[in-house]
Amino acid sequence: MTCLCVPVLVLAACAVPVTGHKTTGLLGDDHQQRKIRTTSGTRGKVVSARVRMSGMDGGRGRREQEAAGRGGRAPAGGVGMWALAASNLASLAYLLHQHYRPRAGAGGSVPRTGTGSDDANGDAPAPPPPEPAVTPDAVIDLELGDPTMYEAFWREAGSRAEVVIPGWWGMSYFSDAGRLCQFLEPELEREVRRVHRLVGNAAVDDGYHLVVGNGATQLFQAAMYALSPAGADRPVGVVSAAPYYSSYPPQTDLLLSGYYRWAGDANALDVDGANNNDGHIELVCSPNNPDGAVREAALSGGKAVHDLVYYWPQYTPITGAAAHDVMLFTMSKITGHAGSRLGWALVRDRDVAKKMVYFLGRSSIGVSKDSQLRAAKILAVVSDAYDGEDETRLRLFDFARRRMAERWGRLRAAVAASGAFSLPEETTGYCNFTRQTVAAYPAFAWLRCEREGVEDCAEFLRGHRIVARGGEQFGGEARCARVNMLDRDRVFDVLIQRISSL
Amino acid sequence: MTCLCVPVLVLAACAVPVTGHKTTGLLGDDHQQRKIRTTSGTRGKVVSARVRMSGMDGGRGRREQEAAGRGGRAPAGGVGMWALAASNLASLAYLLHQHYRPRAGAGGSVPRTGTGSDDANGDAPAPPPPEPAVTPDAVIDLELGDPTMYEAFWREAGSRAEVVIPGWWGMSYFSDAGRLCQFLEPELEREVRRVHRLVGNAAVDDGYHLVVGNGATQLFQAAMYALSPAGADRPVGVVSAAPYYSSYPPQTDLLLSGYYRWAGDANALDVDGANNNDGHIELVCSPNNPDGAVREAALSGGKAVHDLVYYWPQYTPITGAAAHDVMLFTMSKITGHAGSRLGWALVRDRDVAKKMVYFLGRSSIGVSKDSQLRAAKILAVVSDAYDGEDETRLRLFDFARRRMAERWGRLRAAVAASGAFSLPEETTGYCNFTRQTVAAYPAFAWLRCEREGVEDCAEFLRGHRIVARGGEQFGGEARCARVNMLDRDRVFDVLIQRISSL
Repeated sequence: MTCLCVPVLVLAACAVPVTGHKTTGLLGDDHQQRKIRTTSGTRGKVVSARVRMSGMDGGRGRREQEAAGRGGRAPAGGVGMWALAASNLASLAYLLHQHYRPRAGAGGSVPRTGTGSDDANGDAPAPPPPEPAVTPDAVIDLELGDPTMYEAFWREAGSRAEVVIPGWWGMSYFSDAGRLCQFLEPELEREVRRVHRLVGNAAVDDGYHLVVGNGATQLFQAAMYALSPAGADRPVGVVSAAPYYSSYPPQTDLLLSGYYRWAGDANALDVDGANNNDGHIELVCSPNNPDGAVREAALSGGKAVHDLVYYWPQYTPITGAAAHDVMLFTMSKITGHAGSRLGWALVRDRDVAKKMVYFLGRSSIGVSKDSQLRAAKILAVVSDAYDGEDETRLRLFDFARRRMAERWGRLRAAVAASGAFSLPEETTGYCNFTRQTVAAYPAFAWLRCEREGVEDCAEFLRGHRIVARGGEQFGGEARCARVNMLDRDRVFDVLIQRISSL
Repeated sequence: MTCLCVPVLVLAACAVPVTGHKTTGLLGDDHQQRKIRTTSGTRGKVVSARVRMSGMDGGRGRREQEAAGRGGRAPAGGVGMWALAASNLASLAYLLHQHYRPRAGAGGSVPRTGTGSDDANGDAPAPPPPEPAVTPDAVIDLELGDPTMYEAFWREAGSRAEVVIPGWWGMSYFSDAGRLCQFLEPELEREVRRVHRLVGNAAVDDGYHLVVGNGATQLFQAAMYALSPAGADRPVGVVSAAPYYSSYPPQTDLLLSGYYRWAGDANALDVDGANNNDGHIELVCSPNNPDGAVREAALSGGKAVHDLVYYWPQYTPITGAAAHDVMLFTMSKITGHAGSRLGWALVRDRDVAKKMVYFLGRSSIGVSKDSQLRAAKILAVVSDAYDGEDETRLRLFDFARRRMAERWGRLRAAVAASGAFSLPEETTGYCNFTRQTVAAYPAFAWLRCEREGVEDCAEFLRGHRIVARGGEQFGGEARCARVNMLDRDRVFDVLIQRISSL
């Protein structure tokens, strides 16, 4: 397995209290690295709080997952973390949604459609709605990673990024029955490989098979299915170094599979002091969700799934073409099209890829062609802009990187001003894509509450009408909490105002 | 649970050799019923055969499923039934595909897109390609239920059925965070309820919750998850009366869930002679895949999932509004849009619906908004045509019913002429939608081979370059095989020529 070349990352905050922890990263090459700013501090004030009324228990999802691990299930009255998280969003998102819905077309369903007659083409699309307002005292829900920051870019892109799907198109289950992944649209495959070549973040041409899925979420399950051994006496353990993506445990144990089972922190699995994999499947998220750390596998010699959904130039320096056995990506985090539920895996071994395809076939008979067509178009717009000199305003990675740099600058200033929190220290590295030394700007802020007497950071934030996900759900400390950095500008503005005022 | 009123169906062929079998249906009401034609016979001739080279083992998928049930897995060299079925399609479908692919747009990915400038709207869509040619000696693959017959209708519908998706639209994970199913597009919900009201096939307004999924396939798994008891000592058994949909066993046991496990033929579960459910989950497909039988639950007093994907007027008389606890539908079988992977469940109990939503959230964080938008548009076109007098040429159910009637007429004539096969007898009933007594025209032909010395119908058909799915995969006889009735006209023409010549 070829390793990513990684810049140093020093976790100044929210380090997980486990011996042998490896999330502080490895020195991979001779790229420039330096610390830019430390944002922990001690001063600040607390504004008056309004406690939200329901679904606010940040640790509940984890407890439900643990119940599932014992053969139980979320009680009927509370149907699990995801549903709870969604209900958490209700008070804000429902309000936002009412402002944000696109205008219905003549057919009652679409922003623009050719309706009424066969030659009803050419009617202009409805103009995009303005970004919804957020009142100063609104509850802002930043628990999930909804990437609505990208809407502004795609509004600017206009009709270049528009896709038209005729009624007769894409009706078969198959896209190309002659290929390993029979439901993968060839146009999507072409654009996926093209964008990886453009960015240089994955060795996409080194014999890798491309498997499309309903987001990285479904692909991650397909990978576990494909990598777990046939005929084993008991389920193989699935591990990830804490703090790990909070959805890994409940996704792994969703059906209490006989093939695999969540086994916790990879660093707690220190077999004979050697961190030997011992047959486990390790999930390696790099840059890591929640803390942005650049990671390598904690265990050696075993099977790993590399979750590289954030390995794009707006979030982290591109230090080399990743070439792991199974690598996951998703539109949600590249272009912001989370609603399309479209991800892909680059898979080295043909048999593993075929097993993943089998899983996806059984699980959902493949993946929406509509979303594949749209994703191919969106990715083509992204790549086209870097091919031509006159398309600089449509350069997605430039847009997103500028936006992330600005947001992280404001967040670190606000955190320093408040003194109530600390953040992981900023890291830098040489980026092969931008051809300069740049800082990492993770998609989440991994806040640690430094205020005396505060043990639960998510609870503290909720008291200030900020919904975040508590650190314990990531196998970390309750003093930490994860905050989405990819919401819309106006929501982010309120976040900064709130944090600055603490 | 309110029962469907059902017409009599007498299985003259391919009855499953199990005592207590109930697939012969129940007399539900006073609707007119009569037999139209019996198609079994004994004469015919065998044309020279070309044996296909790979993936032709119709029973292989079933053996793999059984291996999975023992804690094993498909061997690496053969990755399961779905992949095999797909590879079966390769020789034909790949060829067809080359003819059928829509022309790439300027963006390299779509039939028509607004590319090149912000005001590049209004360019006409590429005309739909002609239906691909099928050579007289081609292998025709009718193993899966690919519904490409519907392409002709949607070509005729033209731009009425076209959907345009701006780049900025639908980027959030959520459609409406305030609803039970947070990722359900309100436009889709409106059109789904509207088409059910139009057809009268489901009691959609009686407090039912709507849950959207990646096809009925994913929803079926969500339903099993939601209905299996929490904290049980062992997995609940999942059953269906044979012949059952061949995908039920491998989908149920895909991950060897600790919550539920395939337990076979519902009629073999005759507890104390009472067919008592005894806690099992029963899958009730009506009209049934593969044999078209109208069914009720075989067991009493338990939990059931009603797979009603074929309960539409082109396939069967609509005898009443179904009102079961969990009812599954899919675009694939209503309008033919299988590639969109879009299905829905109507769920009576709120907690069951919430658990299904939780499963779908964990499994794939919901369902493509692009496909939901398109499905809403497609369904609007379907319903609109029955609202207005001038849209008769766009009446989908009329189109599909005519097409199915013609196909079944030709198939029964060919089967009678060949003498090599028999078919279930045709049934009729009064259809509340068409307001006349009509025949049932199932989406599959459940052929029984009557030729002496032929024990394996699928193998016999393969010898004549017809790929079908063998009866044993449905828990039935090898003398039976399932043949897709929904492929394109030219493929169906070749099927009739081949069968007529036997």
